[in-house]
Amino acid sequence: MALIVQKYGGSSVADAASIKRVAKRIAESKRAGHDVVVVVSAMGDTTDELIDLANEITPMPPSREMDILLTAGERISMSLLAMAIANLGVDAQSFTGQQAGVITDSAHGRARIIDVSPSRIRNAIAQGAVAIVAGFQGVTLHTNDVTTLGRGGSDTTAVALAAALMADVCEIYTDVDGVFTADPRIVPSARKIDRISYDEMLEMAASGAKVLVLRCVEYARRYGVPIHVRSSFSGREGTLVTAQPSDDEGAGPMEQPIISGVAHDRSEAKITVVGVPDVPGTAARIFEAVAAAGVNIDMIVQNVSAAATGLTDISFTLPAADGQVGISALTAVQGEIGFASLQYDDTIGKVSLVGAGMRSHPGVSAKLFAALRDAGINIEMISTSEIRISVVTRADHLDDAVRAVHTAFELDSDEDEAVVYGGTGR
Amino acid sequence: MALIVQKYGGSSVADAASIKRVAKRIAESKRAGHDVVVVVSAMGDTTDELIDLANEITPMPPSREMDILLTAGERISMSLLAMAIANLGVDAQSFTGQQAGVITDSAHGRARIIDVSPSRIRNAIAQGAVAIVAGFQGVTLHTNDVTTLGRGGSDTTAVALAAALMADVCEIYTDVDGVFTADPRIVPSARKIDRISYDEMLEMAASGAKVLVLRCVEYARRYGVPIHVRSSFSGREGTLVTAQPSDDEGAGPMEQPIISGVAHDRSEAKITVVGVPDVPGTAARIFEAVAAAGVNIDMIVQNVSAAATGLTDISFTLPAADGQVGISALTAVQGEIGFASLQYDDTIGKVSLVGAGMRSHPGVSAKLFAALRDAGINIEMISTSEIRISVVTRADHLDDAVRAVHTAFELDSDEDEAVVYGGTGR
Repeated sequence: MALIVQKYGGSSVADAASIKRVAKRIAESKRAGHDVVVVVSAMGDTTDELIDLANEITPMPPSREMDILLTAGERISMSLLAMAIANLGVDAQSFTGQQAGVITDSAHGRARIIDVSPSRIRNAIAQGAVAIVAGFQGVTLHTNDVTTLGRGGSDTTAVALAAALMADVCEIYTDVDGVFTADPRIVPSARKIDRISYDEMLEMAASGAKVLVLRCVEYARRYGVPIHVRSSFSGREGTLVTAQPSDDEGAGPMEQPIISGVAHDRSEAKITVVGVPDVPGTAARIFEAVAAAGVNIDMIVQNVSAAATGLTDISFTLPAADGQVGISALTAVQGEIGFASLQYDDTIGKVSLVGAGMRSHPGVSAKLFAALRDAGINIEMISTSEIRISVVTRADHLDDAVRAVHTAFELDSDEDEAVVYGGTGR
Repeated sequence: MALIVQKYGGSSVADAASIKRVAKRIAESKRAGHDVVVVVSAMGDTTDELIDLANEITPMPPSREMDILLTAGERISMSLLAMAIANLGVDAQSFTGQQAGVITDSAHGRARIIDVSPSRIRNAIAQGAVAIVAGFQGVTLHTNDVTTLGRGGSDTTAVALAAALMADVCEIYTDVDGVFTADPRIVPSARKIDRISYDEMLEMAASGAKVLVLRCVEYARRYGVPIHVRSSFSGREGTLVTAQPSDDEGAGPMEQPIISGVAHDRSEAKITVVGVPDVPGTAARIFEAVAAAGVNIDMIVQNVSAAATGLTDISFTLPAADGQVGISALTAVQGEIGFASLQYDDTIGKVSLVGAGMRSHPGVSAKLFAALRDAGINIEMISTSEIRISVVTRADHLDDAVRAVHTAFELDSDEDEAVVYGGTGR
């Protein structure tokens, strides 16, 4: 008998029929002898509909009120799911984030979990009930205000609860069969990954893989919570995310595949600061200005300065959504820093190769660059970590780049798995 | 400067445009220098839609989960209303029933308020903000479970908050201009009542007038909260419900009208227990059986027993919705009590004349019976209180009865006010 935390996203509980289907799966887990805690997102498009309502009222809704509004979505899905489970003869009780003891800071709309005290959830389990918990939400410690956790909040709720309850596994149910070696919409021969390490999954998520968000994987790694990403539409095993992907199976590190997968990201843009005086401290001032505006930057490239002029160019990538903010922040310090001009380019794409095995295998970069060259794709920027190589290409070359790299590293499956790949909701 | 509690029903906040309109009215009250606390119901048909969703899931939703589900409705309306007020430059904060300190017993779906501790509301007022409170909901004291108050719950929330805050007035905004001398859909010449006493309003509500529910008026009377029933669609003064309707205005009791209004009710049914042995204790057994089934009875008539047989008939009225339960409860004790048979009739109507002045005016009953006789309407049952006379007629004679009585007691207005009369939501 295990303690299992299951998380179902909005697409898994989009309507009454879906809720009943999910309830059946939960009841089966319970009847198999497991203790089950379920974290649920809002139904289908509920959140978007509530946002639309708010926008009808005001262009700038106060974030505290926005959080109260949005948490209505999970309130609806969690109570309906509890009803559906009860209807199958299995005791079920639903709990808000507050009732489940999810304590956060007071950053409305993007709150961070600071503590989880799930005493009511433990009581429900002890009474033999399935506990249904609203994902995506918490409550501030002293003021008791309702908060939401932002993107990927329900996944993070599930992992945080699994950690606090010392659950055996956190199952993240989604509309795909697991984590794939590449986005199957781009690479139809992509294979499902059976096991992947936290580190690799972090690099995949940071490089654009959408099936799990970064903060959820970070939380799982910190507390050692095994994540099982699987489909709510099939009974198949999905992808297990743990500290040691292959050793448990008795396979030594030698058998470990060099590469886990190929991720891509088309949500970034590139800013080039042209004609920067090449004196100490200039780069620091540029990135201080951008950071002060709350913008996270990703890759940075600085050209060798031209000896004749003493000027250089600095390029960096950032989320395209923050492009305007970044440009404004730099324009404000142009006089102080003394650069010539700014260039903005949001027609870039990023392809990333991730694999713990590349640590011990030299030549991975060379093979990647050769594959792109053979496909006729130009590389604009490069960045690497110990277990990842990312390159920036033109946006309209991105799909070709992903396919070329996937094939070059022999990730293609023999059979076409023909799944539809999508996001996980929130 | 006054402290005003305002309550807006579902029809007043049915969509974004309505919410903005209500926000404007609230902001005006605030800008006029008053402290304002607002209690709001769910938007339009939200509650019915949520009930439909639950019924799609299961025919018997657990009441605890049903309460969590339904309270999502006020969560949406209260946050949107707070946003709309903030958008007008007036600070506003929304609070759930729990945050507002509305403590109830644990009778899910029909919880009673046992305490109101609105410290957060007082803080919001002290900070100069408008406090928006979710109507219809509370929380249990020790287990912190979400409850709903049942029918008229939002009105009751408003009056309870007004009592706890010692507000100057509780304004109940609805879609009619106030309390009328009769339902204007039946009597187009009905007049709006400017002032009415708690006692009269209680009799009106108990007799079928839908503009205020009984429990809300009971609460207001117990704590001496003045209620102002008025329209959210016009700026007109409505009906003031207080302990002493006319004295404040300097008019003595002599000027007080004899009759406040005519109420009607078509939601009742009549059960006749035929052939009851006329021995002591039989009536008690009959009504014990009905009460044990949780059915509230209204009027009771017992015929004089026929000397030859020692048998009598007992008729009583009850909500038609409880008809099946009442019949079952009586059938179960038929052997024990030894009555001959049961008759059920749900084609009855009840017309009630209410007025504190009838205490001191003999002949009111006679005038009522004469008016009905002149209109050719047969009276089937009669019951009276100190300030009310009710009679049961055939359902299809009810409208004629209301009009005849309204005219006989000179309640008709000279002008046709031509308003549309409706319920107040919840």
